[in-house]
Formats: sequence, structure tokens, C-alpha cells
Amino acid sequence: MTDIKAKIETANQKAAQIMMIGRPVWIGCKPAVEVIPGMTRNTILHAGPPIAWEKMCTPMRKGVLGAVVYEGLAGNLDEALLAVEGGEINLAPCHAYSSVGGMTGITSASMPVHVVHNKTYDSFAYCAPHEGSSPKGFGWGTNDDETIQHARWLQDELGPVLDAALQSCGGIDVREIIGRSIQMGDELHSRCGAATGLITRELAPHMIGLDLLEAMRIRVLDFMLASDIFALHVIVAAGRSIVEPAKGVPYSSIITTMVRNGVEFGIKASGLGDTWFNGPAQPIDTVFFSPEWSAADAAPDIGDSSIVETIGLGGMIHAASPSYAYAMNNTYADALAKTEDAYAMCVGEHSSWMIPSLDFRGIPFGIDIRRVLQIGITPILDTATAHVDGGKIGIGEARAPFDAFELALKGLANSWEGIM
Amino acid sequence: MTDIKAKIETANQKAAQIMMIGRPVWIGCKPAVEVIPGMTRNTILHAGPPIAWEKMCTPMRKGVLGAVVYEGLAGNLDEALLAVEGGEINLAPCHAYSSVGGMTGITSASMPVHVVHNKTYDSFAYCAPHEGSSPKGFGWGTNDDETIQHARWLQDELGPVLDAALQSCGGIDVREIIGRSIQMGDELHSRCGAATGLITRELAPHMIGLDLLEAMRIRVLDFMLASDIFALHVIVAAGRSIVEPAKGVPYSSIITTMVRNGVEFGIKASGLGDTWFNGPAQPIDTVFFSPEWSAADAAPDIGDSSIVETIGLGGMIHAASPSYAYAMNNTYADALAKTEDAYAMCVGEHSSWMIPSLDFRGIPFGIDIRRVLQIGITPILDTATAHVDGGKIGIGEARAPFDAFELALKGLANSWEGIM
Repeated sequence: MTDIKAKIETANQKAAQIMMIGRPVWIGCKPAVEVIPGMTRNTILHAGPPIAWEKMCTPMRKGVLGAVVYEGLAGNLDEALLAVEGGEINLAPCHAYSSVGGMTGITSASMPVHVVHNKTYDSFAYCAPHEGSSPKGFGWGTNDDETIQHARWLQDELGPVLDAALQSCGGIDVREIIGRSIQMGDELHSRCGAATGLITRELAPHMIGLDLLEAMRIRVLDFMLASDIFALHVIVAAGRSIVEPAKGVPYSSIITTMVRNGVEFGIKASGLGDTWFNGPAQPIDTVFFSPEWSAADAAPDIGDSSIVETIGLGGMIHAASPSYAYAMNNTYADALAKTEDAYAMCVGEHSSWMIPSLDFRGIPFGIDIRRVLQIGITPILDTATAHVDGGKIGIGEARAPFDAFELALKGLANSWEGIM
Repeated sequence: MTDIKAKIETANQKAAQIMMIGRPVWIGCKPAVEVIPGMTRNTILHAGPPIAWEKMCTPMRKGVLGAVVYEGLAGNLDEALLAVEGGEINLAPCHAYSSVGGMTGITSASMPVHVVHNKTYDSFAYCAPHEGSSPKGFGWGTNDDETIQHARWLQDELGPVLDAALQSCGGIDVREIIGRSIQMGDELHSRCGAATGLITRELAPHMIGLDLLEAMRIRVLDFMLASDIFALHVIVAAGRSIVEPAKGVPYSSIITTMVRNGVEFGIKASGLGDTWFNGPAQPIDTVFFSPEWSAADAAPDIGDSSIVETIGLGGMIHAASPSYAYAMNNTYADALAKTEDAYAMCVGEHSSWMIPSLDFRGIPFGIDIRRVLQIGITPILDTATAHVDGGKIGIGEARAPFDAFELALKGLANSWEGIM
């Protein structure tokens, strides 16, 4: 038993170390079907653990149908429904395709995706760009004409301009962007303005000389100006590339994935590779954008973006982002207390990502399933809130459900052939 | 006596309010001689209170001579010395020309200057752009060929590109940039990376369509990328425009100016308009860029940039910038303590510029000469350090000298026709 405990501790340090030394570089923004291994014209990816069409929440179903029309796989939403129900569409989790998706996570063949290369381990990950400040988007679970038009703009202009600028600059080191942004008050989930500023500074000189229409380039820079959250989907792709090589470290109880599909929340434990352990998606403590909405309008927690909490950001580091805490009606003392909880969940601290107001203590890093259950506190997931019928209506915080952690520990215990 | 005290308190609230509601907008970057009232071809402006050529420190003298050559007023540095000693050059403080200058503050006719318009009070202020990450520059007290070439680049490319972009975007609201940057860890004197990022995001879309050479625009954006401190000289011009309308409020003991010329430190009190009260420029507690330098190499405190402390930024708000404090080998607790001192010096708190980790308490605002003397602590001035023979060798902190505050209080007391 002591022997197993030592093996677990060693394995956990190893898994955390693999995630810590990953160096994700944002190298492109290309159509999904051109870069994601296994992607096909009739595949539509969604957020979270696997889920059948019948069980999907309304925003995700709407997003799927919209993407079917957007890809020309059906002429309208009614035909799209028939196509899905007729089995013509391959629905799969982003996570099965080295990808992550914000909110509903809808990603289809023609959509541009950020390409991130973890140079330390030569792993790749993909994420469709954040849809910006509009409350419409497949990610938010809308699928009207405006949503589809916006998706076409992302495809026709945002993707090509970003990709050309990235080729010109040779890629952007996301590990460094994350470290600097934490020093500038981003928690890097709901607040990403510093990261977006750093990315804009890097890309802007390269935007000047591109052989692409002036008007396109101006619209892209205007989009990045209007949307502090732009950087998020680059960060989540980086997160996905960081956790990948940490999967499958025998005996490790470190979490390598936390995701939600709007119905279920799922985690993966390093020691058990790609096995899912799920619990119910939780309600979100939301600050609504308008008094017209209340908790009854809010869909449960959804999206793959909680990969950022998996790598120690977002809800794990409110102490680094008192402006975020304030927006959530919390004091700095509240933020500090929550971050102390996060340290208690983790096996270590990051050596390069540090919280300035804690005298540059490394962020909490390597969530240990055992510790979560020992302290009886699960990670906070910072998130946006979708309306039950689709559309973005607020930002908030959800707690990961205990169920998934308990199941994962049982799974690990079985694999350990003994008890902790 | 009580009557006078009440008059002072009321006047101080008024002066602070004038500074608080100023709305500085960065509207251009044009040659000094075209925009600064009274500027002439043979005028060279310098930092700090008035000082005779003979008494100037070496970096300032070097900067003056370099600018004389740069302006073609002499063929070389030896001839420049003759021209200055022969009285052919009009030497004057930036402050006498609605201007501010970083470090030596050298500003001559051809140099581009940021133009800031305080829209609330229709006052204008000017500051030559920061010279960037190079250790060479008239501001740092060098005057070799490299320095002069760099100055020509600022004139030929940086100024015209910035000005064209500013005309295209209609100006940038510096009051808002300051507020947002404080939330992103800038103290806005030695640390300005967030402000530079926000400015770049605003200007970048407008850079695309300008009818100026691609290579020029790329070099300007590369310059802004390489230099986190770029925004500082926009901020200091904004500060100058903010304090101007607060001068001359009868009875007010609020400071409207703090500046240094490398020999003397000078302040102005609102109630006494443009009268200078000086004390000796102080040594700087410096973190040197290289172990080759030590305190013996460091010139005393110099530059007009301490206008930022006058408006509550920089050394007044280390609590907002734990990353700055850390770079100075201070803990966050040290930073908090220093900021508490700053609150004790001030008559109020800013209503729009707030410190997130203090639960959005307004920054300390309106330095009261009486309070400084009562608590026995003078403002901290964050600053760069020049070598005694010119060149940038570190960043550090100086304390304003008591002497100037004592003289100013005596001056005020005389004007009050009584005692506090």
C-alpha cells in the first residue's frame, strides 16, 4: 500500500511535469478538414464527453443543425434534422479529434481552427476561433441566418488573415503569452484582454505586408479589438496540446481533461488514458447581461474551455485576476480563498506561470483526484452561460461535480490492484 | 484660522476635481515647431525646473548639444557647445511650453511630439515619444551618431505613421487607457505594457489603410512591440494636460507639478500657479541592468515623467502593480504599505481609476503638501536611471525631497495671510 502511494506520487509529479514543460506554439488557423486528422466533410464535432443526438441539450442540437446547413449538407434546418436523424452526419466529441470547442463546441469541416503545436512533445491540437462579442454563434447554440453569415465571415476572412499573419511571424509562443497575461490580470478564461493585446502586438506588424485585401485585414483587427476574449480559444487549443502527452502515465491520479457537454461533465485521469468519468453538468452561478434573464433561462455548464482549469488557469487563479472576481461580485479576499482551495487540490505549482500578488508563487498545477476528494472541494470552472434555447446571456462560475471524481478514483483504484 | 482651513479644504477638493474630470485624448504626433505655442527653430526644451546651462548635469548637457547638431544649428558637437555658450540657443524648461519630457526631456523643433487634448478644459500638452528600448537617446543623455540617427527615424517614420493613424481613428481616450491599464498591472511609469497593448489594439486597424510605405508602418509596429514602455510618453502628456487647468485655485495646497532636472526637484502648488519650489534632486535606488554599474555611476533623479505620480500613478500605486514591485525586489506587502502611505498624502481617491486588488478602491488622488509634511513621507517617484555620463543603466525609485514641500508650504502660508 505504501509502495502504491509512492508510485502514485511519483507518477503524479511526472504527469504534472509533462504538462508543465509543454511549449505550445500557435502556428496556424486553417480549415478543420485540412488539418484535423480523421476530419471529414460530414463530421460535426461537439463539446464534452460523448453524447447521443437524442440526449443533447437544445443549444448543442441547434448548433449541430446550423452547422449541417452551413456545410451545405442540408438545404435548411428541417432537412438538417432529417439528415442527423437519418444517420448521415457523424457526430463526435471534439476530444476524439485532438480538438476542443468553446460552449457547444460545434466544429465542422469548413470552419477555420487554430492550430497549436506543442513543440516539446510534438503534439497538435485544434480549436475553432471564438465567435467574438456577438451573442449569436453555433457555440452559443443559435443557428439563424445571422449566425451562419457570421460563421462564413470567420471562414472567409478571419481564418485566412490570421493564418497568413501566423505564417509571416513564424508562430506565437502561447506558453509565454499565458505567463505574461497572468501578470496582467487575466485569469485566461473569462478575462483574456491582456493575452489578446499581446497577440495583437505580435501579429500587427505582420498584418501590414500581407497580400490580402485591406478591408479584410481591417475587419480582422477590428474584430480582435472588439473582443477581449479573442485569445481564449488559442489558449484552450494550447491547453489541449499540453495535456495530451500527459495521458497514460501509469498510477497517476492527475486530471488531464475536464469538459462539459451541457448534460454531463467528464474528466480523464492520467493513469487511465482516454477513459471518461462523468457526472451531471452543473448549474452556473451567473451574472446575467440583462435583467430579463434569470437562473431559469440558463443552460447547465457546457464547453471544452475548462481545459484551462485543467492546466491551472481560470477558476484556479482568481487571485491573479481581482478584476474578474469583482465582475462576479467577489472581493479580493474571496478570490484569494478560492485560489488557496485550488492549491490544496494540486500536486505542485507551475515554474513559469506565476501570480504576482502572491509574490510570484507558481499557479496551482496538477489537479489530483485524491486531493479533490480529500478536501471535499471541486474545481471552479469559469464560464459563459448559454440560454436554454441558445444565445449568450451571461458569465458565471460552475463547480465540477463530485460524481465524476469519485468514479475516476474507483477506476484508478481498480487499476492499482489495491487501495491508496 | 478655521476659516482658512475650510477654504483650503474646499479649494483642494476643487483642484483635485478639476484634475479628476479632465479627459485627455491623444490626437496627434506632429513636429514640435508646428504645434507647441512659442516653439522656435533654435529653442531646445529640457526637463525639470529652470536651470542655467552651466549648472546642468552631464546627461542633459549632452542631450542639448546633440539636439543642436540634430537641428542643424551646428555642424558638430564642438560647434554646438560654442553656439550654446554664445547664447544662440534658447534653452527653456518643457514646462514653460505646455510640454513634458522624459529623462533629460530634450525636445527640439523638428522632433515629433505627442499632442494630447484635455477635452474637458480645452487644454493641450505635448511630449516627444519615448525613444524605445535602446540605451541611446537624447533623453538618456547620449549624442553620438547612433543617437542622432535614431532621432531622425523617430522624426521621419514614427511621428508621421502615428499621426496618420491617430487622424484615421479620431484620437485615443487616454483617461480610459489609464483606467484599464491599472486593472492590468501597469503602474504606468516603469511598467506600461498593458497601456501599450491597448494603444496598439486601437491603432492597428488604422495602420492597415494608411497611404504610407509598408516598410515604415511595419517598423513602427515593431518598435511598439519591442517597447512595453512606449505608452509612457502618451500618459505623461495626458498628465500635463490634466494638471494645467488645476493651477491657480486660490488657497489650494494640492501639487500640480513634480519634476526633476537632474540637479533640482521642483513642485508647483495649485494655489500659487506657476511658482516653482525646489529641492535637491535625489539619488535613485536603482536595479541596474548590468553588474558593471553601481550607485557611483547613477545620475540623480531626472525627468518630467513624475507628472504621473502627480496624478496618482507610478510610485503612488505599487499595490496595483505587484509585478513592478517584484522587479524592484519588493514583496506585495511592501507595495501595499507604500500605497497606504500614498493614500495618506492625498485628499481623495479617483472615481474612475481603481486598484482591483483593493476591491476597486480609487487610486490616491490629489497630493496635499500639508499632508506630506504631516506624515513626514514624500511621494515615491518610479523612474529610469541615467549614467552620470549619459546612457540608460537601470530602473529605480527616488523619493521627492522634503525641502521643496517645506518651501511650498511657506509660500502658501504667506499667500494665505495667516497660518494653517
